[in-house]
Amino acid sequence: MQDLLEMKEISTKDIYEILHEAALFEKGMTWEPKKKMFAANLFFEPSTRTRFSFEVAEKKLGLDVLHFSAEHSSVQKGESLYDTVRTLEEIGANVVVIRHADECFYHSLKGNISIPIINAGDGCGNHPTQSLLDLMTIRQEFGIFEGLNIAINGDVKHSRVARSNAEVLKRLGANVKFSGPIEWWDASLGEYIDFDQAVEEADVLMMLRIQHERHNMNNMELSVHEYHQKFGLTIERSQRMKKDSIIMHPAPVNRGVEIAPELVESPKSRIFKQVKNGVFVRMAVLKRAVASLAYERGEGIWELC
Amino acid sequence: MQDLLEMKEISTKDIYEILHEAALFEKGMTWEPKKKMFAANLFFEPSTRTRFSFEVAEKKLGLDVLHFSAEHSSVQKGESLYDTVRTLEEIGANVVVIRHADECFYHSLKGNISIPIINAGDGCGNHPTQSLLDLMTIRQEFGIFEGLNIAINGDVKHSRVARSNAEVLKRLGANVKFSGPIEWWDASLGEYIDFDQAVEEADVLMMLRIQHERHNMNNMELSVHEYHQKFGLTIERSQRMKKDSIIMHPAPVNRGVEIAPELVESPKSRIFKQVKNGVFVRMAVLKRAVASLAYERGEGIWELC
Amino acid sequence: MQDLLEMKEISTKDIYEILHEAALFEKGMTWEPKKKMFAANLFFEPSTRTRFSFEVAEKKLGLDVLHFSAEHSSVQKGESLYDTVRTLEEIGANVVVIRHADECFYHSLKGNISIPIINAGDGCGNHPTQSLLDLMTIRQEFGIFEGLNIAINGDVKHSRVARSNAEVLKRLGANVKFSGPIEWWDASLGEYIDFDQAVEEADVLMMLRIQHERHNMNNMELSVHEYHQKFGLTIERSQRMKKDSIIMHPAPVNRGVEIAPELVESPKSRIFKQVKNGVFVRMAVLKRAVASLAYERGEGIWELC
Repeated sequence: MQDLLEMKEISTKDIYEILHEAALFEKGMTWEPKKKMFAANLFFEPSTRTRFSFEVAEKKLGLDVLHFSAEHSSVQKGESLYDTVRTLEEIGANVVVIRHADECFYHSLKGNISIPIINAGDGCGNHPTQSLLDLMTIRQEFGIFEGLNIAINGDVKHSRVARSNAEVLKRLGANVKFSGPIEWWDASLGEYIDFDQAVEEADVLMMLRIQHERHNMNNMELSVHEYHQKFGLTIERSQRMKKDSIIMHPAPVNRGVEIAPELVESPKSRIFKQVKNGVFVRMAVLKRAVASLAYERGEGIWELC
Repeated sequence: MQDLLEMKEISTKDIYEILHEAALFEKGMTWEPKKKMFAANLFFEPSTRTRFSFEVAEKKLGLDVLHFSAEHSSVQKGESLYDTVRTLEEIGANVVVIRHADECFYHSLKGNISIPIINAGDGCGNHPTQSLLDLMTIRQEFGIFEGLNIAINGDVKHSRVARSNAEVLKRLGANVKFSGPIEWWDASLGEYIDFDQAVEEADVLMMLRIQHERHNMNNMELSVHEYHQKFGLTIERSQRMKKDSIIMHPAPVNRGVEIAPELVESPKSRIFKQVKNGVFVRMAVLKRAVASLAYERGEGIWELC
Repeated sequence: MQDLLEMKEISTKDIYEILHEAALFEKGMTWEPKKKMFAANLFFEPSTRTRFSFEVAEKKLGLDVLHFSAEHSSVQKGESLYDTVRTLEEIGANVVVIRHADECFYHSLKGNISIPIINAGDGCGNHPTQSLLDLMTIRQEFGIFEGLNIAINGDVKHSRVARSNAEVLKRLGANVKFSGPIEWWDASLGEYIDFDQAVEEADVLMMLRIQHERHNMNNMELSVHEYHQKFGLTIERSQRMKKDSIIMHPAPVNRGVEIAPELVESPKSRIFKQVKNGVFVRMAVLKRAVASLAYERGEGIWELC
C-alpha cells in the first residue's frame, strides 16, 4: 500500500522516483487508469492551493473527485475520522487525501484502511507533498541537492513545511540552517544562524508563512512592520543574495510581512513555480498510490496513455 | 414520472425490480445514458454517506453532478424550495435528489416539476433509499423476507429509517417489532418488546442512531453509559443472538452508545455492507428515474453498455 | 484576451456574435476543446442560478470545473484576490469566473493575469452575463431591439442588472425608462416614469429584485405589502399590459413583493425562460474566452464537434 504520510518514511529511492515521474508529467506525459476510480479529498481545514492542486492532479489522471469539507458532513454528528474514511472506502473511494488540524491524524487509519492515504497536511506536523514540490523546484534549478545551502527562515516551530523539509533535505545532502525569531526556532530541526548571514549564504532561501491562525503574534511583542524589518526579505536584503540563488515560499504569502510585495514575482522568486510544480508531484504521488492499489488487488488494468 | 418519495407509494413489484437491478449493479453491470445528463443534489442538512453515496452512484451512471448545499445559495436570499428546484430544472437538471429537515418537503414539488424527485431523507419522515439498501442487505443474507424476525431498537420515534422500514418490511412478510426506551416507541408503527427478548429472537437486529441533533437526551434522564447498558448492543448481549442473525445500523454509529465499539466490524455486523449496498440501490433508483424521464420525453436514447 | 467584465466594454458587433452563438447552442450545437481545460468558479457571494448556470455551461463545453466558495479557502488566511487567481492560474485554470461583493473587483486583475476573467456579478456594479441573457430573451420575442419600450422597475439603485442593461439596451436602440420608488431611482441611468404608465407602455417590463441583503427596506417606511400595492406587478396591473408585452425578472423573485405569485409562471412571464437562456449565453461567453486563449497561445486545437 503506497500511503504518503511523512517524508521520513519515504526512501530516498522512492523520492527520486516520484520526482522523476513528476518531471515526466511536467513534460506532458499522461497516464490514466482504465477503470473509473474515485479520489476522496477530505479537508478539515481551509485550503485553496493544496485542495485545488490535488483536484486538478486527480482530474488530469482521469479520477473522479469526491470533495468533502468538514462543515457539511456527518462529522457534525460526531463521526470519527476512522468511520468517515471507512465509509468513503465502502462507497467506492480508491484513494483518500486528507488535511487535518490534528498532528498525525493518520495514526488511527494506518493499517485499518485498505485504500492508500495521502497526507495533505496535519496540524504542525507534516506536509509531504509540499516537501516534494519544494524538492522538484530546487532540482529544476540546481540539478542536485548535495552541498546546497538551504536557509529556512521564519515561523519554523509552527511550520509543517520546515519539519518535512529539514529531514529530507539533509538526507539528500543539503546543508540546512534556520533563521528568524529565536523563539520560533526548534533546536531539534537543526542549526540556527543570523538571518542576514542566511541571506548572503543561501542558494535557496525558504521563507515561511507566519501562521496567524496557529498562534498569536502579540506574544512576541513585534509589530508586523518590525517583523518585516528584522526577519522579512526586504528589497535591500534581496540585493545581497548570491547570484544564482532563489527565493521560495510555501504560500499563501503575507505580502509585506515575510517578503516585500515587489519580490513575490521577481526574477529570483520561484513562488508561483512551486504552485505549478505542486500539480505534477501530486499526479506522481496519486499515480503511485492508485497503481499500488491495483497491483495489490491483482488488477492489471493500468497503462500509459 | 418515477419519483421516489416514500416507500409506501412504491409497489411491491417495483421494490423487487429495484432490488434486482441493484443486484446486477453489484455484479458489475454498467448502464449509461447516451446523452449528457445532470443530477442536482440538494442537501439542506449535513450528510456524508448519503451525499457521497448518491454522488458515486450518479458518476458511475455517467451523470454530471451539481452539488448544492443550503449555505451557499439563494436560499439565503429567501428563495423557496419550489423556485430553487424549478430553477435547477431550467438550468438543465434531469433529476433532483433532496435531503431536507422539513417532513414531506416534496409536497410543494410533486406534480409541479417535470423532472423526477428522489427523497434523500425528510425530517423525521422518510428515507426510502435507506430502506431499499436495508432490504438489499437482508435479502443478500436470507434470500426472502417472509417470516423473518426483525427487531428495530432505539430512537424509533425520531427515526426516518424506522418509519420507512416498518411499513415495507411488514408488507414483504417480515415480523417487525420494536424495542428501546418506551418513551421513544411509536405505537402506530407496531408491537413493542423487551430489548433482551429482541436480541434473542431477531434474525435481523436493527440498531438505530440516537438523533442527538433532533432532541435532547437529558429529557430521558439517562446518561450515555446507562443507555448503553439498558438499550445498547453490548458484547454480552451479542453473544445471546441467534446463530445466523445479523446486526444492522443506518450509521453514523455512536460507538459505545447504541453498540459496543468492538461489534461495529464484527462477523455479525453488516453495517459497512449496508454502506456499500447504498451505492447499488441508488444506481437502480437513479436509472429508473432518468430512464422514465427519457421515455416520457420520447427519447429512445438509453442503452446497456 | 476575451475577458467579460462590463457590458459597456463589449462592442455591439461582439454582442451580436455572442447572441448568435448562444442561439446556436440553444438549437443544439455542441462545441468542445480537444484538450482538457479547467474553469475555476470563484463565488465570494451566495448564488444558486448564476453558479449552476455557469457550471452547467462549462460542463456542456466539456470543461473541468473547480468550484471555490470563499468560506473554504485561504481567503480566510488573508490572501488577496489577485494572489488567489494567480494561484489558480498556475494550478491550471484556463478561465476564471468570479462573483464578488466589491464593485469592480477585477481592476486588480486586469492585465496581470494571463487567463480570461468573466465577471459573474460585482457588488452593485455589473453583471454582464445577466444582461446578455436578458438580450437573448428579448430578441427571441421581438427579433429586434430598435424602438422597443423597456421599463425597468424597482430597486434600480442597488441593481447590477439595471446598470448593465440600461447602457446596452439604449445602445441597441431601445427606449429605456425607469420606475419604482423615487428614492431608488438613479438619474444617471435614464428617465423616470410613473409605474402605472410604465405598465401600459412597455413591451418589456423588467421587474427588479429588492436587494434585502444590500439595504434596509425600513429606511423607506414602506411595508412589503405597501410596496407590492404601489410598485409591484399585481394581477390588476398585469391586465393593463400591452397585448404582446412580456414580464422579465432576474430572479430570485420575492413572490408577492415585486410580483404577484400567480404571475411568475403566467403566459406573459419569461422569468424561467431567462434562466434557461442563461446557460446558452454563458456557453457562448466561455467559448469566446477559451478559444481566444488558445488562439493567443498558438494552439490550433479547437473544433466544432
